Parts: sequence; C-alpha cells; structure tokens
Amino acid sequence: MAGNTWGQILRLTTFGESHGPAVGGVLDGVPGGVLLDLAAVQSAVNRRKTGQNPYASSRQESDSVEWLSGLEPGAPGQSVRALGTPIAFLVRNTNARPSDYDALQDVFRPSHADFTWWAKFGLRDARGGGRASARETVARVVAGDVARQLLPQSVQGVAYVERLAGIGADPALLETGSVSSLQIQTESHPLRCPDAAVAAQMEQRLAELKEQGDTAGGVIAVRVDGVPAGWGEPVFDKLHAVLGHALLSINAVKGVEFGSGFSGAESIGSAHNDSFTGMGTTATNRSGGIQGGISNGNSLVFRVAFKPIASIAQPQQTVDVYGQPQELTVGGRHDATVLPRAVPIVEAMTYLVLADFYLLQRINRTA
Amino acid sequence: MAGNTWGQILRLTTFGESHGPAVGGVLDGVPGGVLLDLAAVQSAVNRRKTGQNPYASSRQESDSVEWLSGLEPGAPGQSVRALGTPIAFLVRNTNARPSDYDALQDVFRPSHADFTWWAKFGLRDARGGGRASARETVARVVAGDVARQLLPQSVQGVAYVERLAGIGADPALLETGSVSSLQIQTESHPLRCPDAAVAAQMEQRLAELKEQGDTAGGVIAVRVDGVPAGWGEPVFDKLHAVLGHALLSINAVKGVEFGSGFSGAESIGSAHNDSFTGMGTTATNRSGGIQGGISNGNSLVFRVAFKPIASIAQPQQTVDVYGQPQELTVGGRHDATVLPRAVPIVEAMTYLVLADFYLLQRINRTA
Amino acid sequence: MAGNTWGQILRLTTFGESHGPAVGGVLDGVPGGVLLDLAAVQSAVNRRKTGQNPYASSRQESDSVEWLSGLEPGAPGQSVRALGTPIAFLVRNTNARPSDYDALQDVFRPSHADFTWWAKFGLRDARGGGRASARETVARVVAGDVARQLLPQSVQGVAYVERLAGIGADPALLETGSVSSLQIQTESHPLRCPDAAVAAQMEQRLAELKEQGDTAGGVIAVRVDGVPAGWGEPVFDKLHAVLGHALLSINAVKGVEFGSGFSGAESIGSAHNDSFTGMGTTATNRSGGIQGGISNGNSLVFRVAFKPIASIAQPQQTVDVYGQPQELTVGGRHDATVLPRAVPIVEAMTYLVLADFYLLQRINRTA
Amino acid sequence: MAGNTWGQILRLTTFGESHGPAVGGVLDGVPGGVLLDLAAVQSAVNRRKTGQNPYASSRQESDSVEWLSGLEPGAPGQSVRALGTPIAFLVRNTNARPSDYDALQDVFRPSHADFTWWAKFGLRDARGGGRASARETVARVVAGDVARQLLPQSVQGVAYVERLAGIGADPALLETGSVSSLQIQTESHPLRCPDAAVAAQMEQRLAELKEQGDTAGGVIAVRVDGVPAGWGEPVFDKLHAVLGHALLSINAVKGVEFGSGFSGAESIGSAHNDSFTGMGTTATNRSGGIQGGISNGNSLVFRVAFKPIASIAQPQQTVDVYGQPQELTVGGRHDATVLPRAVPIVEAMTYLVLADFYLLQRINRTA
Repeated sequence: MAGNTWGQILRLTTFGESHGPAVGGVLDGVPGGVLLDLAAVQSAVNRRKTGQNPYASSRQESDSVEWLSGLEPGAPGQSVRALGTPIAFLVRNTNARPSDYDALQDVFRPSHADFTWWAKFGLRDARGGGRASARETVARVVAGDVARQLLPQSVQGVAYVERLAGIGADPALLETGSVSSLQIQTESHPLRCPDAAVAAQMEQRLAELKEQGDTAGGVIAVRVDGVPAGWGEPVFDKLHAVLGHALLSINAVKGVEFGSGFSGAESIGSAHNDSFTGMGTTATNRSGGIQGGISNGNSLVFRVAFKPIASIAQPQQTVDVYGQPQELTVGGRHDATVLPRAVPIVEAMTYLVLADFYLLQRINRTA
Repeated sequence: MAGNTWGQILRLTTFGESHGPAVGGVLDGVPGGVLLDLAAVQSAVNRRKTGQNPYASSRQESDSVEWLSGLEPGAPGQSVRALGTPIAFLVRNTNARPSDYDALQDVFRPSHADFTWWAKFGLRDARGGGRASARETVARVVAGDVARQLLPQSVQGVAYVERLAGIGADPALLETGSVSSLQIQTESHPLRCPDAAVAAQMEQRLAELKEQGDTAGGVIAVRVDGVPAGWGEPVFDKLHAVLGHALLSINAVKGVEFGSGFSGAESIGSAHNDSFTGMGTTATNRSGGIQGGISNGNSLVFRVAFKPIASIAQPQQTVDVYGQPQELTVGGRHDATVLPRAVPIVEAMTYLVLADFYLLQRINRTA
Repeated sequence: MAGNTWGQILRLTTFGESHGPAVGGVLDGVPGGVLLDLAAVQSAVNRRKTGQNPYASSRQESDSVEWLSGLEPGAPGQSVRALGTPIAFLVRNTNARPSDYDALQDVFRPSHADFTWWAKFGLRDARGGGRASARETVARVVAGDVARQLLPQSVQGVAYVERLAGIGADPALLETGSVSSLQIQTESHPLRCPDAAVAAQMEQRLAELKEQGDTAGGVIAVRVDGVPAGWGEPVFDKLHAVLGHALLSINAVKGVEFGSGFSGAESIGSAHNDSFTGMGTTATNRSGGIQGGISNGNSLVFRVAFKPIASIAQPQQTVDVYGQPQELTVGGRHDATVLPRAVPIVEAMTYLVLADFYLLQRINRTA
Repeated sequence: MAGNTWGQILRLTTFGESHGPAVGGVLDGVPGGVLLDLAAVQSAVNRRKTGQNPYASSRQESDSVEWLSGLEPGAPGQSVRALGTPIAFLVRNTNARPSDYDALQDVFRPSHADFTWWAKFGLRDARGGGRASARETVARVVAGDVARQLLPQSVQGVAYVERLAGIGADPALLETGSVSSLQIQTESHPLRCPDAAVAAQMEQRLAELKEQGDTAGGVIAVRVDGVPAGWGEPVFDKLHAVLGHALLSINAVKGVEFGSGFSGAESIGSAHNDSFTGMGTTATNRSGGIQGGISNGNSLVFRVAFKPIASIAQPQQTVDVYGQPQELTVGGRHDATVLPRAVPIVEAMTYLVLADFYLLQRINRTA
C-alpha cells in the first residue's frame, strides 16, 4: 500500500535511501527451480552505473550485488537454482557523501521531490534525495534481470535513447531489423542511441549543455519481440496500462505512449486499423502489439518521455522549510542527462511486468 | 489479480458483458457516514450515454442505476449516508441486440480485442465485444462519481476534448480561468470542447468522416484544482504512475502525459524547472502538479491520447477463428468518435485515483 | 482492504445487507472455459436455507440465484462455460421484514455485532444486523460451489455437525470410511450429524433448549480427500493458516484446529509424529494432511468451534446508543442453532481456499 | 502471493533460509515521524534467542539486528524517527552449521516440512529446514516490536506458556491482575509460565522428556488490554480471523481459539452471552473482546495450540527422496519445547495484526 512493492505474482519490494547504508530489494514469486545467471544480473546492474560517460554523475559505486536468500547453495560464478522462496539482495552505498547535501538540509530544490516528500511525511532524508533518488532503481535492475531470465527465451527486448535534447533518430528504426542487432548498436555508444550519426549529434549538444551547467530531456523507445498472444488482464490491468504504471514510476518520466500513441490520436480509423493477414499477424503494427489490453503476438512497441534532470548548475529561485525565499545553486555530482543510464531501468520495469503477466497467464493456459 | 478490480483502499470491482444481463460494480472502502447524492451519480452516468450527439452510437439505454447495498435506507431522491459496507450497483442492458453480432461470431474485427481475448481465454463472448466493450465503463462512471463526492470539496476537476480528428484547441486554455468556467464551456457543446469555434470545426470534420464511414481519434485534457500537497505514494505508486495506469485502462487510450509531457522531453533543465515562489507555489507548472510522484498543491494537469474507433463502416481485411481470410464490414451501432463520451470516463478514473490516495494519506497525516 | 474480498487468484467480493434489496457477490479469477453446473450451485444454496428443520429460523427466502455476468450464453438448466471474466450474481431479499427490528434501532443486542459495528462506522443498519448478519454467507455458498466445481475431481470434502449442545459423535468417525458415505449419512438427518443415534440425542436436547428460548453451540468437523501434495504457500499463507482465516470469518466461529489440534498440544513428539510409510503416505495423520503449511497428500482434517447463537428469547441486560441501561427480549425469527445451516458455509469457505491454492500452484508446477 | 508478505497497510515481507547468509525483512507502511527505540527491538529479539534455558537449542547466534533503511540518521542507541519509507533489516546467520544436515539431504524428517516443500517446489534447501525453519521468525519479532511501538500506548499485551507437556496453569489467571504484572511474572521463569509453582512442575516434566530424547507441546495464552472499540474489518477480515491467520502461520501451531473458544462451543446462549453494563463494557468477556469480528473495547483474549517439536532424538521410520524406507535419528541442535521461545513470536504477530488494523481504522475514524 505504501507504494514500495511492484507486481502481483512476481513481487518486488525495494528499500533504501540514496545515502543510507544500502539499497536493495526482495523479489518474491520466482518459481522454484528457475536457473539464474547471477553474473548476468551484475552486468545489467553495471549498465546503469554512474561514470560510464562524461555526461553522467562522477559518483563511483562498485554496485556489487550481495545475495541474501532464495538461492540454492552453489559454486560462485555458476548459475544457481531459485528455491521458490524470496530472493533478497542488497547493494551497499559505498561512496555516499552525505555532507554534499548539508547545504540542502532546509531548502527545497526546484522540480525535485524535496518539497512534496516533506509535505507528505512531515520529515525527509535530505541526503541526495533520500529514497526519492534514482539510486533506488538499482534494485529494480537487479530484479528486472531476474525477471528477464525467467521469461521464455523467445522474449527479447531492447530499449534505447531515441531522442535527446531535441535531437532524434528516425522513429522507423525501432521496428527495423532484429532486436539483437539493435541491442548491439545501442551498446556501442555511451549515449545508447543505435544510430551512430545521431548519437554523435546528441553528444555534441550535450557537451554544450554541460558547459552551461544545464541538462537535457529525451525519449526512450522500447521494442519487445516474442511475447505470445494472451498476456495482460482485462479490464483494469491491461498490458499497456500496467506497463505505463511501471514506466511512469521511473524517476523523471512524464509520459508514455504505445504503438502509434499521441500521433495515432491525430489519425482516422481507416488509416489506423491493423488488418489481419493471418492468425494474429497484422499488416501494420499501429496497435504496438496490444489490442484490448492483451498482447496479440506482434512486437510490443512503446516510448517513454523523460524531463530534463532538475539538478542544474545554475542559480535558481526557491524557498526553504520556513517558507523564506532562497537562491540556490545545486552542487553534488549529477548527470547532464539521465537517459543512457535509464535504458536498463526501462528494460527492467518492462521485464518485471512481462514476467508477472507470463506467470499469471499460466493460470488460464490449461483451463 | 484477474484485472477487474481497481484501487487499494477504495476498491472498485466491475462486472458484466456488453450484451449480457447487466453491467455493474461493487465499490468497497467508502467510509461510513459519507453523504451521497445518488441523483448526481445518475447525472454523471447520463453524460456518457449514447445518442447525445449525431456522431455517437444510436444504441439507446436508459442506463438507470440500481443500488443494491451499502446505503442507509432513505427516501428516494434524497442524499443517503454510506454504511461503510460495499456499495453494489448494476445497470441493466435493456437495449442489447446481440443478433447484430451474429455475423461476427467467428471473425476477428481488426484493431479490436476480438482476437486477443480469444487467444487469452480460449473462448469469447462475441456479442458486441462482450466484456471488452466500452459498455463496462458505465460502472466506472458510477463509482467515479461516488469517489468525487467523498473527496474534499476543494478538489474540482474538468476534462474536455482538446484535439479531435487533427483539430485542436489552444493548449494554454487548460490552465486559463477557473475549473468551473471550463466545466460550463465544455458541457455547452455536444463534442465537449470548451472553445466553441474549435468545436464547430471539429463538428464539420466529424460530419465528413461519418459520411465516409470513418472515425476520429483525439486528445482529452484534464485539470484538477484543490489537491493538497502530499498525495501519492513512493516509489512505484507515484501519483502520476497510478493515474497513468487508470487512464490507460480506458478503452482506446494509447498514451498519457503529465505536465509538459512529451514536449518537456525536448526541453532543457534551465527552461523546464518550476521555481518556487512560496511554500509549495511555483512560478510555472511544467511538473503538472506532481513532483517526485507526489502532489505539490498546484493544479494537476495531464492529457490522454485516444486512437480512432476501430469499428469503421468500410470493408476491411481480416481472418476468422480458423485462420481463413475474410472481408468484413462492421455493422451495428457505433460512434464516429469516442471522445465526448470518454470525458466522464476520464473524470471517473481520475476521481477514483484521487479518492484512493486521499484515504491513504489519512494514515500518514497525523503521525 | 475493507474486508469484503476473499482470495488471491480466485477472488470473491460479497455485498449486501440482511434486509436491503439483495445480497450477492462477484467471483473473479475463474479460468475461461471451466464448465459450471448452475443447478448444482443452487442446490448448495438450498442446503443453507432457513426453514429446513424445526430449530432453524422460520424466515422463508426462495434464495434463487440470479447470474449477472461471466457466463457463456447457454440454454437454461445446462452447464455453461465460464468466460474468464467476473461472475457476478445476486440473491434478492424477498422476505425481508425490517419492521421486526424497529425496536432494536437504538439498542445493542448482547454478544451481537450491533455495538462494535456502530463504534467502527459511526452508524449501522439495524435491520437484522445489516451486513453483520449471516445472510451475507449465501454469497459465499454460491461462490464456494463454483470453486468446488473448478477443483480437480479428486478433491472431495465433507463437513458435518460433530458436537452440538454438549453432545458429540466419536471423533474417529471423521476418518472412517469414504467421504461420499459420510456425505450421505450427513444429509440424511436435518441436524447434519452422520451418526444417527447421536443426531437423535442432539435433536432432543435442542427441543428442550428451544422450549426455554435458548440456543446451542457446537463443533463442525471437516475432511477433504484428494488434495495433492504441494498446496499452500510459505510462510504466512500456510494452508491451514489461510483455512483458519476463512473459517474464523464465518459468523459465530470462535476457534479452529487442524489435525490433532488442541489435544496434540498435550502430547509428546514421539507419540505425535507421523512416520512416513511411503512417498508422502504416513502411518498416522495427526498433522491433518498439512506439514510446514503445505498439503502432504493425506486427508485434510480440521474442526471449527461455533458459539451458541446470541439471539435468545429471554430477557437480557443491555444499553442503548445513549448508554442507558435497557432490558431486551429479542424477537424476530431466529435459529436455535446455527450449526446445520453452517455446514454448507464451512464447505464453501474450504473450497474457496483450496481452489485459490490450486490455481496458485499452477505457477510453480512446471518451473 | 507467494506467501512471504504479511499485512495490508503495515506490510512485512520476510526472507532468508536457516543456514543461508541471513534472515531479515522489509517493513513497509510505518508512518513518517514515528519514534522508534531500536534497543527495545533488539531486546525483543533477544527474548526469542536460543540457549536461554536448558531445554532450548544450543545453537548460539548473536542475532544482532542490522538496520538498512527507513530510519532518520541518528546517534546510535538513541531513538530514531521513521522516514515513512521501507524499514529493511537483517540478522546474519553467524552460527550456521549446514554440515549438521548433510545426512538429511535426501531424507524426509517425519512431521517436518521436508517432504511437502520438496513436493511443492521440486527442490528444497535441506540445511536445517531452509526457509521452513523457525529461524525465519526472528524477522517477525523485529517487525512485531516496531509494530508495538507505533500502536497507541494504551495497547499493552502479554503472552505466556499456559500449558506444557500436559501441565497447565489456571485459565482464570489470564484475566487476573494487570498485564504488566503478568509480564513480570512471565519473564521471571525461563519457561515463561507466570505461575511459578506450575512452571516448576513443567520444568521437571521437561527434564524427563529431554532425558528420553522427546519433546513437548503446549498452549500459549494471550491478553491485550487497551484496544479501543472499532478495530477489525467486516466480513472476511474480522479481527479474530486475521489474528488466527497470523498465529496459525507460526511454526508448529495447530489451533487457535478466541474468548470461550472450544469450551464455548459446549455452552448455551443464556450462559454464554456477555450482558452490557455500559457503553461497550460487559459483565463477562466470553467474546474475548471481539464481537462481529470487531473489537469491543474489552481485553482481547485468545489461546494458541502448539504441537510437540518434530525433531526428537529417537529412531523414526521414514523414506528418502527415492521413496525408499529409511530409519532416521535426527541430530543437530534442537529445543525440547518451542513454547518459551514462541512467546515473543506470538506477541510479534499479535502486534503486527493490531497495528495494521489501527492504521486501517484511521481511514474510517473521521468520516
């Protein structure tokens, strides 16, 4: 109820403040016997680490995952079987520098969660945003990769930076070629845009913004192949509704759209409908792989809008906890854009949603 | 789990197929003693009825709400107190014409839920989409108006058709003037666009589309004033994430955005941040009234994208349940656009979400 | 959250006040395609009706189940398939006589829910206990029989009155012979005690109590055969813990015990352990078919203690809503004992729990 | 869903295997600002530790609670405020001796969870019962003491060993004198029976059983004063139904009863009803403080039956994972009785239930 748990069958509860002892989670509902590659999980976590590109926070964390429960005892480095019991894990906050935030103890950073969390709870952990910090998402990435591993092997997804600071790749790229080729192209540039030329332009624009102490928003595009028809639950838990919930819960996300999305709203029925060409196959995919809230067997296609990071290195007008005006220049170690690091987080939430619906669909499957 | 229940404290479970005996719901969690105006609920339901404008389905339903439980016995027409027990209600499907759908028994309508629900459950109710029909939303409107009535009186919302068939009102209109004046303007035109001149253009375009047997998509804009700071729950149940889930669960919705949304993704931090001018008040509202997932006391502002209705009166290519190609021309009684009727549904889901977080916040309020 | 919903995968939400328009429920989570015999459901409902024996309330209700949704259209009287959507149903309160309760409007009946519900909600429906009445359980019986029908056919249960008014059958009877023979013996006497001689003694004692305007408590014993090993969930949702929750939620229940129960607490380990004789088979069944919270393949065995009905036809001391002392003699139409009518309710809650764990176990089964 | 989470508003998720790296939990829903005495929590944990009496397991664990999140940074040893975010904690398994269990890898201990968990999940952690071990309950005790601290100070409870190995204290003792005096008497003897003479008899009997390699069952009695009228939720989540669920989820519990319980089932209405003597006060308390599932303001009174520990130091007949007969003598370090150590666990589950209903009732309180 307090909002720190995700999922129905596959349930992730996360915990931890940005500059407290640790962040972590408990993932419950992984069926007994599922084989897990823990090194692969660590790799997913490493993909969201800071310090991977010049536009990311210089905070250095080893982000080494410590596994506490739910796994069959096994030789380190090997795959282990899930016991069917809760898989708990934590990541220590080894490079926490709470003193960076002493100046912020009593002041509200604009467009941050500082004021609202204080208004909600009557107190807050001012050290780096406390639990409102995106540091919390490391636990999502751990769990998301476990979710990925328990899905059928047919399910293959990719997320990438499609737009950044007003510069964008061709939208058609998302449904061009295979998921695996998009994965390779995406990871070949630190900004995680699979079109190298566009990535270079983004990089140049980002360098200018960083120079000015500014930050950039953008859009992450996602495609998942191999989801069979039938996932999702009517009527409130439609597949895209739950995906939307999951994606909007990621820090800085301000919008989501599925298939044709907002541009589809400008269209007319005769131009928008996806004609059937066979059992579940369609001539076009404006539905984004989901009809009536349930997957139809085509590629899932959706986009996620991120606002620019609120922590800019420029003076801003604000107030303190006493309501007094203050001028504030945020220090600390911050990203110029969140998007490349958000890619594995978007993937994680996607896999958590899909794995949950996959397990739920087992109930309907044989009746 | 099966997706027919919404909410945590205030829980709505809906039931019913489009052409079955009835649709209805059970609303649990209304605190004992809340005074309810049942005539106002019926008015809300009437606003989503068919036949209100020439572009809506000609199906005529009285849509009279029958109350089954949870209310103190009282004189009809007067306000009654909630008992604190589940409020069950139903609306009979008096004008069901399932024979309209005989021809569709074995064929999948493009961009409808026909194929996916059949793939999921192994059978389906082909009469008018069965439970996948938007007829289900009548139960949401009943419950949504009860939710509205239990909210603090400060909370006042309006939804309207901002864009239709490629024609749009000025986005700035949403935050111009009072909510109540927007409500009056909105209801003064059957298309529920508060800008009369734009509404007239929309009407003309819609007449053309209807003539062609075609349909239009569009965008509904929403504003809610009077929500105090502190509603919403970290980290997965952020206020906008749960609103997004609720809105995406409405038939034909393909996208949602909050505050600056997708256009904010094109922006930079220095241009996007909302400076504080006082305790919780900001110079701008690009955040859409929500920061860090929790309301900040400003107007909630968001938009919902609807695809064009899939039922067009033109021949379409499809397949039947045996995988054989079929040419299909959908008959029955359908809307040329769903948007005007969707306005009260969008409002209903909004109030259901807000009332739930209002009740949840009681738990934190005094600690 | 408000307590009117039962179950996780198979979820029942009930509604209705004793003397309101109707009681009913929504059963969500029945997998699509399950074949349901609605006449059998009606038979289960008829078994809990009043007026079946001289010691039960003379209130006459037809208790005819009206099905509202979730079922494939079919010829009446035939079995129908579940659509996978919520199955809603209601039973009208045709013989409500709320005026019977006018005298109770402002007074609290001893050992009833009158005071506590008033204290909780700040108001109450005084007509026959409102929602606190056992009339609510008719919805459980409807749903419980649907649950029974979706279980594997191997699962066969029986509940019966083992003790009444201090008179009891031999406890060993419960694990003697087949479930089906116990079912037949149980239904052959209106008091639902399978030992005819004991039933006759119970009947005589009950006649004396009724003469005195008094009421009797007792114990219902339950056995379920054919539950495979593996049902139940660690650690909080152990099979017997959830069964206990379900059974204790039935009106007038004050205790539950599983297997050896309270007598096992007097025992020692060497006398109490169930030795294994084969894979899952044990020499004795003191565990009652459950070990570590999970079924072991043996018969489930448990007992439920019911207090005497609080509505006695004798003067009692009480207070009214103003705190003033009152002498009260309860009128209306009441049972001298609740136990024979409670037998189908106990069975219903048992089947709801088992069906839920059966569906949950599908998730683990193939991993 | 997987059964490792307890509660609705106040939610505890536990994790950990007996001989894995750690056991622990995440407690979500503690309102922001609640002041917590962490030393008191450690004291509660120490009360359930092994090695406190000669009849308990000789396994030595420091059981030092490590706090990971959810607490305002503060000086060690002082009270700290809850942040309103999840409180995560762990206890390392420092004295794990998994090699003790090598001989049990392939064999099922009678009346243990070995067979059933293996049947459920298809594999199991054979080291000391894995997650089925009562070691999991250390997390419950941590969370339960936090729950106690957030309850109104009026709420004061005591649990004690009422019966052990067939020897019992006078049942009337439970409602005699104050809770605090019972607490002192209970803690003054290692067997946690407040009647010193009875405790001495129990001790003698237990010494004999230990000598024989045997174990004893018993009954724990509980009383909680100061619960106001109105806690609990109709109809499925009655206060005693949820307490029953919580208590039955504790290892080795086979029964629960409330107020008069099973003896009340032998009674008649005129002898059993609790007459009102004032607003919520009653002449007797056979209801155990709960009527219609909701607290009435009197003392909560209930009892919990524990079977004898299954690990006896005597040869037993069993089978292995291949279905082959085996003779087994369990080694390892085990208790002769679980009851004294179960006292703080029973208290913990009681406080978790009460704190949850206390928070839930905030929602109804002002409407």
